[in-house]
Amino acid sequence: MYIALDAMGGDYAPESNVKGAILFAKETNISVYLVGNKEVLKPLLEKEGGKNLPIEIVHAEEVIEMHEPPSNAVRKKRKSSMYIAAKLVREGKAQAFVSAGNTGAAMAVSKFIVGSAPGIERPGIAVAFPTKKGKPTVLIDVGANVDCRPRHLVYFAVMGHTYVKEILKSSDNPKVGILSIGEEEGKGNELVKETYPLLKMSNLNFVGNAEGRDIFTGDFDVIVCDGFVGNVVLKTSESLGSIIVDMIKQEVKKSMISKIGAALMLPAIKRFKKKADFAEYGGAPLLGTKASCIITHGRADARAIKNALKVATEFVETNFNEKLYENIEKLLPEPLLEV
Amino acid sequence: MYIALDAMGGDYAPESNVKGAILFAKETNISVYLVGNKEVLKPLLEKEGGKNLPIEIVHAEEVIEMHEPPSNAVRKKRKSSMYIAAKLVREGKAQAFVSAGNTGAAMAVSKFIVGSAPGIERPGIAVAFPTKKGKPTVLIDVGANVDCRPRHLVYFAVMGHTYVKEILKSSDNPKVGILSIGEEEGKGNELVKETYPLLKMSNLNFVGNAEGRDIFTGDFDVIVCDGFVGNVVLKTSESLGSIIVDMIKQEVKKSMISKIGAALMLPAIKRFKKKADFAEYGGAPLLGTKASCIITHGRADARAIKNALKVATEFVETNFNEKLYENIEKLLPEPLLEV
Repeated sequence: MYIALDAMGGDYAPESNVKGAILFAKETNISVYLVGNKEVLKPLLEKEGGKNLPIEIVHAEEVIEMHEPPSNAVRKKRKSSMYIAAKLVREGKAQAFVSAGNTGAAMAVSKFIVGSAPGIERPGIAVAFPTKKGKPTVLIDVGANVDCRPRHLVYFAVMGHTYVKEILKSSDNPKVGILSIGEEEGKGNELVKETYPLLKMSNLNFVGNAEGRDIFTGDFDVIVCDGFVGNVVLKTSESLGSIIVDMIKQEVKKSMISKIGAALMLPAIKRFKKKADFAEYGGAPLLGTKASCIITHGRADARAIKNALKVATEFVETNFNEKLYENIEKLLPEPLLEV
Repeated sequence: MYIALDAMGGDYAPESNVKGAILFAKETNISVYLVGNKEVLKPLLEKEGGKNLPIEIVHAEEVIEMHEPPSNAVRKKRKSSMYIAAKLVREGKAQAFVSAGNTGAAMAVSKFIVGSAPGIERPGIAVAFPTKKGKPTVLIDVGANVDCRPRHLVYFAVMGHTYVKEILKSSDNPKVGILSIGEEEGKGNELVKETYPLLKMSNLNFVGNAEGRDIFTGDFDVIVCDGFVGNVVLKTSESLGSIIVDMIKQEVKKSMISKIGAALMLPAIKRFKKKADFAEYGGAPLLGTKASCIITHGRADARAIKNALKVATEFVETNFNEKLYENIEKLLPEPLLEV
């Protein structure tokens, strides 16, 4: 097995990416293609002690920057680390692809270079949110698709179900909800109202509407939504966490006693941060692509990169797509099986 | 001037509502219609020392419960405190309406009993979010409308502009953004792509796309969105705040030193909570109705009720709707003025 890692993508690339690959290779002895500028990567790999590990550098001249238009990854920069990493997967040389780079670009190469899995119209990005109950809630889609049709959301539900059951292993019969603005059936927008009966007819463990607040309670294992809504929710949640911490810090600074209190609380805050850290969960997989594509946060450090590589491995080892195909046949509502 | 207060709606009704009305009447000497069961309200008002204040009880037999279908407020329970409070406004006996009850029901009576302002197709609910910069960012719509058309979002922008300028007074030339999933023009779903050029053509201070994270930075004064998306964002944000606090508490409990630290930090945490508290801002106004309707949080305490009554007063005193009509004429893009 080979995992292709975009070594140049991410805020701390290539250092974190190289370190992450080393941690991963040491722990698992699984091979990594480190894709990027070999003049930078070779000395770095040696310096970090990765010389005798199963890590192979694949040269790529270009880099997709964080704020470039995603289409560049497919059209203009065909010598980028991201493009070449995805191509290794398409050619069967690697079984999965990991990137901490420009999310839109990573989605574009996943979709156009790796390609969708047979029968899948729209791959979706899943993010596992930490919850009160400890076990994660998977929100899908968080940005790969906007203006979804009802059938796309049903497929997201099957993908989320498979992800929870086979990879996160947090439930055997995942509770699936649809993100809406009221608890009762019939509440929501057109998309929700049309999707609801399809989910109800399916063989999924569909439990109804979920509201914004339900993302963090742990009452649902999977919540499906249109990628526009999911992306707004993801970005709002990420920033709100850091803003709450900032606002508390500002208040703490105003008195000496608070400062002492904050210092004493530091270990607890650190434990909290670790729990709430999306990086712990190893990035966001794009589900429904021909081979596994894991997109990690731009701020991914070595540990997050290692976790993402491990998740990619799990996708390969559990034969995720085979499980997904089985579930599509088994769980989809009748109307979606008619051609 | 009279403000009609639904005395029976809200988690702490009628106690908090009566206390809030008393605080308000003492501070402003403005008259309040306290609408609800007089057998409950009369002794309560006397007990709380509200006897010689300009507070008048208007009897209403029924109460809309928090989880009832909103349509009940208009169809089935026409003797509810909410319905009768709204009717006082329609009949011109009160100039504004305040409720802490069932949000959906409050929207329904605002829309059907009070009615839309001339020229307004869809009133929108505005919520002022606390931000890093201290001044609020108004998100509109947070749930009054789903499946909006581009013109509705443009009207929300004009309503939000007027709210920021005339009521919150946090900017003279409010920066308006549209909630999307990328910073650049052209990013987003169909609705965003169609609305963007209209906002650009308008005379509003339109600064482009806002992302989920921009809600809390203070870089925007107004962010417009479809009510489905806005409601999900609002509920996600509200619950995430409390879940972060819960998760930190859990971690703090694990060590004595953290517990001492937390105790020392308490005043700072309280100051933070006050800053982040939506109640401080006096509830969420439904903008674009014939008279002002202020919907406060179901958990509104006496202070929040008082603040909501004060905001309602400001809407009346600044002649909000006249300002709104002027702004619609002045700010709307040409294509929306053609009939």
